[in-house]
Amino acid sequence: MFARRMYGVQSSAVRDLLKHAQRPGIVSLAGGIPAPDLFDIEGLHAALEASVREGGTAVFQYGQTEGEPALREAIAELMRGRGVRCSAEEILVTAGSQQGLDLAARVLLDPGSTVVVERPSYLAALQTFALAEARVLSVPSDDEGMNVDALAERLRPGDARAIYVVPDFGNPTGRTLSLARRRQLVDLALRTGTMILEDDPYGALRFDGQRLPSLHALALEAGAPGRVLHLSSFSKILSPGLRLGWMVAPPEVLRQAALAKQAVDLHSCSLSQRLVMTYLASGRLQARMPLLAEAYRERRDALSAALRRHLGDHLQTNRPDGGMFLWGSVARGLDTARLLEIALEEGVIFVPGAAFHADEPETHTLRLSYSTVRPDTAETAAERLARAWRRFEAERPH
Amino acid sequence: MFARRMYGVQSSAVRDLLKHAQRPGIVSLAGGIPAPDLFDIEGLHAALEASVREGGTAVFQYGQTEGEPALREAIAELMRGRGVRCSAEEILVTAGSQQGLDLAARVLLDPGSTVVVERPSYLAALQTFALAEARVLSVPSDDEGMNVDALAERLRPGDARAIYVVPDFGNPTGRTLSLARRRQLVDLALRTGTMILEDDPYGALRFDGQRLPSLHALALEAGAPGRVLHLSSFSKILSPGLRLGWMVAPPEVLRQAALAKQAVDLHSCSLSQRLVMTYLASGRLQARMPLLAEAYRERRDALSAALRRHLGDHLQTNRPDGGMFLWGSVARGLDTARLLEIALEEGVIFVPGAAFHADEPETHTLRLSYSTVRPDTAETAAERLARAWRRFEAERPH
Repeated sequence: MFARRMYGVQSSAVRDLLKHAQRPGIVSLAGGIPAPDLFDIEGLHAALEASVREGGTAVFQYGQTEGEPALREAIAELMRGRGVRCSAEEILVTAGSQQGLDLAARVLLDPGSTVVVERPSYLAALQTFALAEARVLSVPSDDEGMNVDALAERLRPGDARAIYVVPDFGNPTGRTLSLARRRQLVDLALRTGTMILEDDPYGALRFDGQRLPSLHALALEAGAPGRVLHLSSFSKILSPGLRLGWMVAPPEVLRQAALAKQAVDLHSCSLSQRLVMTYLASGRLQARMPLLAEAYRERRDALSAALRRHLGDHLQTNRPDGGMFLWGSVARGLDTARLLEIALEEGVIFVPGAAFHADEPETHTLRLSYSTVRPDTAETAAERLARAWRRFEAERPH
Repeated sequence: MFARRMYGVQSSAVRDLLKHAQRPGIVSLAGGIPAPDLFDIEGLHAALEASVREGGTAVFQYGQTEGEPALREAIAELMRGRGVRCSAEEILVTAGSQQGLDLAARVLLDPGSTVVVERPSYLAALQTFALAEARVLSVPSDDEGMNVDALAERLRPGDARAIYVVPDFGNPTGRTLSLARRRQLVDLALRTGTMILEDDPYGALRFDGQRLPSLHALALEAGAPGRVLHLSSFSKILSPGLRLGWMVAPPEVLRQAALAKQAVDLHSCSLSQRLVMTYLASGRLQARMPLLAEAYRERRDALSAALRRHLGDHLQTNRPDGGMFLWGSVARGLDTARLLEIALEEGVIFVPGAAFHADEPETHTLRLSYSTVRPDTAETAAERLARAWRRFEAERPH
């Protein structure tokens, strides 16, 4: 009775887990959500009040599919501040970068088309590609991000329609694609005529090291601006509940994506758009970014240290330069899904790594989010996880 | 370079026309938009303020894919008031009913699946079905809505995945599906195992006659509640800019639609949802509906009368019992697309009827929206249209 595509889509393990996160007393390292205590509530309220006061009926009326012109302008300026040269005409306002991903999939992928992803990769991107009935080609990654050499060996011109990559502090691994590999990836995309889907929700949350040039910027430098479709979002830097993100796309792609959006939801929320327009005009975002980065750095450090203290070498984690996630692993052969069952009983949750693999799941991996975990809670989380670990070890046959 | 589906989707003639509607001095009979002067701005502001004041950070945070529980509850109650028996668990909050339509298409239709529509039909539904690469089977309609006899002759079990119908005051025709045909359609859907997509954005805007039972209610009565997927929206009764609609669906369909929504945009705007929750709790909507209906009735009457006065028998229009549209026609053989070109020069626009036909376009038809046209403006619109008509006639060969 259902369309074929629905048999390939699985419910998000993360969203399913979030139901547990609501239970009183549970410490969640599972969410990929920004810290609510870091929301600029005062600034959001002020912007909301001003936009409603000055917006008249337009705040509640239908708007343009591409987005409010002034917001597209402000986003283009924001992008230029990130080193991405673009104009307002290249911006499509979307319902979070998730919708950008879905629109890109609908515009670029036919059933059976191949899309390249990193292994592990963003879970909801895998869902979107499953919904598009795409064939997913997983490429291994390491601390420098996607292994572009491994991809280059397998990718011939015309093989794939798109390469999906989160270059900065990716979900779930927190890894950053190195500069050398960025250049290599853009070069490969040019040689093979493949579009790059650059998904960058986290790049602005860098707290260590220097920002690397985006794939969009590198493609422009290489004289091929049409090769990269760049996605980003206000979800991680301002508010996810407003459901606003954007796509930076070459004109002919943007036209198609806007056409798809007409049929998908007509346009994004007018109220949210005006709120964000007003907020951006206030200049508060630029002022807040260092505070946000500093707070997340502190949380990364606190959770890393607590895990080290309580779990020692049993749990290995990396040390990302930004974003919200630690990527961890226990000894090969162990299954973090079982560890989670025990951890839930102990009052702490995380996401087992298997969910982020389109194939060849590495069941001994896990994602630990520090974004909503204050330093004292990090200690509690690590203690509980250590208790769970001891029970987990005790039930293994010797 | 683009997915095959994009070659079948055309830009909305209406949305393209709306750009002209912004030009100063133009009187627009083209929009399918609710009257901004009838927005309950005071009530919306009060609800917004209260929901932000009481909502804390949740107003700006991620939410559940299915929608805010309290909003789903309130919508279920609203539906029960419309004679649709359902519980909160059967409600999926969507980004307007447009997204409900897209989710339904993704859950139910494979490329090549057949979907039945009325001729003429809602333009953005045709776009959604084109995006789904569905085969569209158009069934003629008349003043009682879709000609179900004509459909019954052609439809065998398993032929179509869905029948799309706007039973009340449909866009573009303003027509209502008669009770006899509703029963016939539900019966046909049961016999052939076809799902009905009942799209009802306008039903609450009835100003003449009695509300007829929904197809959802009739299917329930017939012991087959799973046969109808019902869509509706706050766009026409409260505010379209908030982008909130809903789907009433049997549990297994709702589960699939929510799964698709995870991949499509995660969830609908938290701020909009809380605003609408608060607004519904205030009881203002029920109090306002008679005012809205009365205002639209007055506008229908004013435009009808002015057109009659200025264009006489040259333009035939119907007299819908609710909604926002008059459906009109000029003599067969004439092309309203050419009339529009002249009308635009005279300062008035409408939508030529051809755009609403998936096939066999009737080029002598047109859609005239009275929703945003106050009585004095109706006079101006009709005068200008009559001037355009005279020029149009003058250029015809004798």
